Amino acid sequence: MANQSHDVLGIGNAIVDVLAYTEDDFLIANQLNKGSMRLIDEAEAERLYNTMGPATTISGGSAANTTVGIASLGGNAAFIGKIRQDAVGDVFAHDIRAIGVRFDTPRSVDGPATARSFILVTPDGERTMNTYLGACQLLSPDDIDEAVVEASSITYLEGYLWDPPDAKEAFRKAAGIAHRAGQKVSITLSDSFCVDRYRDEFRELLRDKTIDILFANEHELKSLYATSDFDSALAALRQEGTLGVVTRSEHGSLVVTREATKAVAAFPIETLVDTTGAGDLFAAGFLLGLARGISHEDCARMGALAAAEVIQHLGARPQTNLKDLALQNGLTIS
Amino acid sequence: MANQSHDVLGIGNAIVDVLAYTEDDFLIANQLNKGSMRLIDEAEAERLYNTMGPATTISGGSAANTTVGIASLGGNAAFIGKIRQDAVGDVFAHDIRAIGVRFDTPRSVDGPATARSFILVTPDGERTMNTYLGACQLLSPDDIDEAVVEASSITYLEGYLWDPPDAKEAFRKAAGIAHRAGQKVSITLSDSFCVDRYRDEFRELLRDKTIDILFANEHELKSLYATSDFDSALAALRQEGTLGVVTRSEHGSLVVTREATKAVAAFPIETLVDTTGAGDLFAAGFLLGLARGISHEDCARMGALAAAEVIQHLGARPQTNLKDLALQNGLTIS
Repeated sequence: MANQSHDVLGIGNAIVDVLAYTEDDFLIANQLNKGSMRLIDEAEAERLYNTMGPATTISGGSAANTTVGIASLGGNAAFIGKIRQDAVGDVFAHDIRAIGVRFDTPRSVDGPATARSFILVTPDGERTMNTYLGACQLLSPDDIDEAVVEASSITYLEGYLWDPPDAKEAFRKAAGIAHRAGQKVSITLSDSFCVDRYRDEFRELLRDKTIDILFANEHELKSLYATSDFDSALAALRQEGTLGVVTRSEHGSLVVTREATKAVAAFPIETLVDTTGAGDLFAAGFLLGLARGISHEDCARMGALAAAEVIQHLGARPQTNLKDLALQNGLTIS
Repeated sequence: MANQSHDVLGIGNAIVDVLAYTEDDFLIANQLNKGSMRLIDEAEAERLYNTMGPATTISGGSAANTTVGIASLGGNAAFIGKIRQDAVGDVFAHDIRAIGVRFDTPRSVDGPATARSFILVTPDGERTMNTYLGACQLLSPDDIDEAVVEASSITYLEGYLWDPPDAKEAFRKAAGIAHRAGQKVSITLSDSFCVDRYRDEFRELLRDKTIDILFANEHELKSLYATSDFDSALAALRQEGTLGVVTRSEHGSLVVTREATKAVAAFPIETLVDTTGAGDLFAAGFLLGLARGISHEDCARMGALAAAEVIQHLGARPQTNLKDLALQNGLTIS
């Protein structure tokens, strides 16, 4: 593998999203928790697809979306994730490479199909995700390319990687390589139900300094510290000594260190269409800024700008050149 | 087959669209005619896909889009078109049925794959289509379900059907059944290059009264009568005695009969995103109105409203309930 350097290497579930506009009644009838992600098997995927409305297919996957955002912002990104040799895998590989993200993970040739997430978008713009993990379950430590990790300023991982059986081992391997090479490791908590499933392990990752930069939204942070009080959760995060980035939808974000908590406003939008990818794109802007050494506040502004673009249309991948959008708004990286 | 009645039966190429935002430079480098449709083979499809940017997949096909628009407007529609037993075919079948269009055409089990159109959307909102016809080439007169044609007030066919080898015979068979049952037959000229390919045959269809209602845009109409002067083309159309509907983008539409030419304004929009499907959705509104007996001007208003919705987002399928949109704007069918 070449020794080209990357701002960010993302490691995550390689997923293609199937998005449909839905009324709230459909969520209720199917007993779905609005705004969350649930894992489904192949039979449930088929049942749900057959009952949902006309859909739009757009590549997704949380950490994958983040790397695409970084490329759109003019940064250099790589991605590791598992797809199969199938038509859906072709779509995933095409889309991530077409925007310039390095993606070399060997595909599986048999076993489960490339992952799909069936995403129901309600009139309020909220998305409810139903994910069939498929080939993602085959991601293993063997897929971690040591040279790529070493050459990446930040290795970014999604909390969802705790769901497939061997992916967390891939995560730990990558984190070890990154730290030995003097690079940083970051994680997003992904989803409050995901935090519920793996709370102790996530807290251990912070305690043992596996994580240098943590992304979470309010719900996930409260779930991490098992409290209903946001200020208590924030105080607990401050004690970790990790750089914490807490996203709060239209209320902007907080950048949390042991020394200070800085609030940065959300970027104004015209119409909220679909929140899918909001957190992923926020992380893209923040991480690229961090890799290039701009201030934490400007990192958060870059994140807010990228998130604002992606929530004004369907799907979690940018539809405009984010680098141009950032320039127009006085945000530059060098 | 059941004898349920339909407002409109659409017969056309069953296609899934793969849409990507593109700069004009890309069209120039690939020698593509902006705004037109060209047919490509499998090798060119692969080459183009590998060079184009990240894409969004949304079901398409001209007459299919029209039937979906009719269903979204609260009408009753059926579609005949050929897909294969493959993943892309599953997407097409799911999306058209999910909105309530009847679609029973037997799938092919081998041979070419389900059709895809690679659509490049430039910053001006224009779309340039590159269509791999695949399984559409297998549409034959055997696929025309006589009972469904007889039970449909209007049978609507796309000019693109002249491209696959046996589809025009399917068209002629359907037109004959419709007329014998006392129903109407309509065609869209589809594309000025398509008219170039089949000008004499299309003019013969008008002369021999195979067609009761003709849809065309300005370019197609000029191509039909081989003139660069729009007024001459319009005068020629008036002489046919066919009901003519001429769409003129932001300049609205003209409803042309031997007796009169009536102009109806375009529906106002906020932002033009992607013109894909504009003509198809105009036809949806017009045809449903016609099937339900409202005035020609109101038919054109219903068409303008449906077209306005579809050009404000990516893809040729409505993203909002068009029936509600029509009601909000004082247009109702009964």
